[in-house]
Amino acid sequence: MAIITLTTDFGEKDHFAGAIKGAIYSELSDVRIVDISHSISPFSISEAAYIIQNAYTSFPKGSIHIIGIDAELNPENKHIAVLLDGHYFICANNGIMSMICTEINPERIVQINIHENIVSSFPVLDVFVKVACHIARGGTLDVVGKRIEDIKPIQNLRPYVNDDQTQIIGSIIYVDNYGNVITNIKRKFFENTQKGRAYKIHARNHRFTTIYNKYSEVVDFTKPPAERQSEGKGLVVFNSSNYLEIAMYKSNTSTVGGASTLMGLKLMDTITVDFLKD
Amino acid sequence: MAIITLTTDFGEKDHFAGAIKGAIYSELSDVRIVDISHSISPFSISEAAYIIQNAYTSFPKGSIHIIGIDAELNPENKHIAVLLDGHYFICANNGIMSMICTEINPERIVQINIHENIVSSFPVLDVFVKVACHIARGGTLDVVGKRIEDIKPIQNLRPYVNDDQTQIIGSIIYVDNYGNVITNIKRKFFENTQKGRAYKIHARNHRFTTIYNKYSEVVDFTKPPAERQSEGKGLVVFNSSNYLEIAMYKSNTSTVGGASTLMGLKLMDTITVDFLKD
Amino acid sequence: MAIITLTTDFGEKDHFAGAIKGAIYSELSDVRIVDISHSISPFSISEAAYIIQNAYTSFPKGSIHIIGIDAELNPENKHIAVLLDGHYFICANNGIMSMICTEINPERIVQINIHENIVSSFPVLDVFVKVACHIARGGTLDVVGKRIEDIKPIQNLRPYVNDDQTQIIGSIIYVDNYGNVITNIKRKFFENTQKGRAYKIHARNHRFTTIYNKYSEVVDFTKPPAERQSEGKGLVVFNSSNYLEIAMYKSNTSTVGGASTLMGLKLMDTITVDFLKD
Repeated sequence: MAIITLTTDFGEKDHFAGAIKGAIYSELSDVRIVDISHSISPFSISEAAYIIQNAYTSFPKGSIHIIGIDAELNPENKHIAVLLDGHYFICANNGIMSMICTEINPERIVQINIHENIVSSFPVLDVFVKVACHIARGGTLDVVGKRIEDIKPIQNLRPYVNDDQTQIIGSIIYVDNYGNVITNIKRKFFENTQKGRAYKIHARNHRFTTIYNKYSEVVDFTKPPAERQSEGKGLVVFNSSNYLEIAMYKSNTSTVGGASTLMGLKLMDTITVDFLKD
Repeated sequence: MAIITLTTDFGEKDHFAGAIKGAIYSELSDVRIVDISHSISPFSISEAAYIIQNAYTSFPKGSIHIIGIDAELNPENKHIAVLLDGHYFICANNGIMSMICTEINPERIVQINIHENIVSSFPVLDVFVKVACHIARGGTLDVVGKRIEDIKPIQNLRPYVNDDQTQIIGSIIYVDNYGNVITNIKRKFFENTQKGRAYKIHARNHRFTTIYNKYSEVVDFTKPPAERQSEGKGLVVFNSSNYLEIAMYKSNTSTVGGASTLMGLKLMDTITVDFLKD
Repeated sequence: MAIITLTTDFGEKDHFAGAIKGAIYSELSDVRIVDISHSISPFSISEAAYIIQNAYTSFPKGSIHIIGIDAELNPENKHIAVLLDGHYFICANNGIMSMICTEINPERIVQINIHENIVSSFPVLDVFVKVACHIARGGTLDVVGKRIEDIKPIQNLRPYVNDDQTQIIGSIIYVDNYGNVITNIKRKFFENTQKGRAYKIHARNHRFTTIYNKYSEVVDFTKPPAERQSEGKGLVVFNSSNYLEIAMYKSNTSTVGGASTLMGLKLMDTITVDFLKD
């Protein structure tokens, strides 16, 4: 059975996501629709890119991913369908795919042209659903668009390394449900630059010299609970998606706060890693 | 496979929606359950009416729509099942169906009477699920209730036109995820009253003389981006459901705000359209 | 078709829930995944316990329930799979199961040991999904873990009765989407202690002497609407899960407020019931 996933900024309340599902079931009786997220911040391409990148890899090859963010067709925002890593993505050519494409080359990109005469303020319903159902029925990308070679890049997704390879300058690209802040520094990039050296991670006035592999590693379980002081303690991990993340152990954003609020870290803030001399 | 959709004010957190789904799967092994929304404002009949009206039309004919808003049975709030436009709706007779029914006459309305001796504070689980599963199995409405001819109306859903046909007085019936405000003025009603005349739309101290067909039409793509000043600019569109909507281009309610907050427009506020002499 | 439900604190926005679903569909082509809730307050074991307890009973026997709350494996937080009341539960041994287990004895409990060498900050994906799919394929619990006899208890879930049986001292364990506050006093426990006596319920400075069976029983429908004054009126019901609940008739937490805000009642607050002499 074909799988179609949905990643949008429609929110949880409006009829948009429901209408999309109805339209898909009207075209295909045998399909599985999976919500990835409808709570992307409105028009946030970088949030959508982070979320779809970390969700799609769990799905079976051949899955079809609709990304409904900033999708209105206009002279500067065309619609594309992309085959990459065995998965199909349908979205606007607004930079969303570039985070995935920096790591894996697309096998095929088409600019959708089946709809050039449709004026629509709801292109996910009027266009993306049709393309997704076409692919789900076994149709090819070439039927729905003309091949193009490049997609629109997005700025600031990749961290910088200074010339003498002693510093990584990254930035915060996502704040998650626990208030933990995720940087654009991936484990492999970090380790390739680190080459085994010790390091100091700076986030505003906070410093860290250890990166954990899971959150509870910050806890010293040999001490009695009352002496541990680990809850609400800042820490750095490579998260389950292999991004360097600044976290708070057992945080709760609606009560005590999380790393974001307690350390004053927000989207696009700079995080630096200084490597020490051997 | 039968489709049962859910539109409720249960919220995203509580166990109510999950319990409903479990109860349906306990009765029917082969059914598709689709969430339309669980985030309707508590007891908001007009929000629920707007959402179900705009979602149901995308679904295949024969779909069954459970609407769980203000559904407790009491002397003034009976339960009904309605066949309309080829779709089944199960809800309380509290006005929710009247927005749909102003445009399309129901084929059949029954007042549910299979449960008159059940005292329940969770009628969606105890009654609506049973009725939905009965219909999904091919059962008729007449088995679950007695036929009635009329449903309870809801006030203020329709705009007014003054006697000399120079003004429409509408109101805001919904604020969407982007902070855009939707009025009760539909395109067809507008055009029938307009008869080709020029117009001025008034919303508080804001005036508009153009209605767009999509949001990005407000952008002048012939200018360089820095000179466009279109983000955060107010505009009027007929939205994808053909309602007159006052919007903000690329708004974000959690940061800069949307049309609602930036223009000070809220639910039930008056919007007027003045038609100019030829 | 096997049913796997999800109850987590992942929130509605992040990729976590989507990734879980993708992983399940990658293992099993024929399975039904049902979201119970992803909006549990982060790390709130008592909220998760309340929600899963009230949702699972609606599902068919044999359903598999993944509970992803505070699930990171560490020396004090092991993973368990439990067969209870014909349902399978997969979670951390952190107290979540104890609310259900106070009323029904588990048929089997195993401490999961298929993964003792995996270091993971996302055990729901890396471990719970594997166990759930194993059970869905008809596998036994004994293959994934070693049998244990007891699970970790959770404090304060049960109300107290004083020595002369004249008072129940309970506490608030949940605040729902309508702002209604739910206590840990269940109907059967109440009635067994009450033995037919009259009672006064105290919540802060509020007193109630009636417990309703549904919310609208507080309304006197014999009076004309303007004289009823029932909206926004405090009341006590046994809710649809048979917990004693202090509610507000037709409350809305985002506008006028609900029982929680209007009466100043919050999680863990004490509620007492005094039984009067015959």
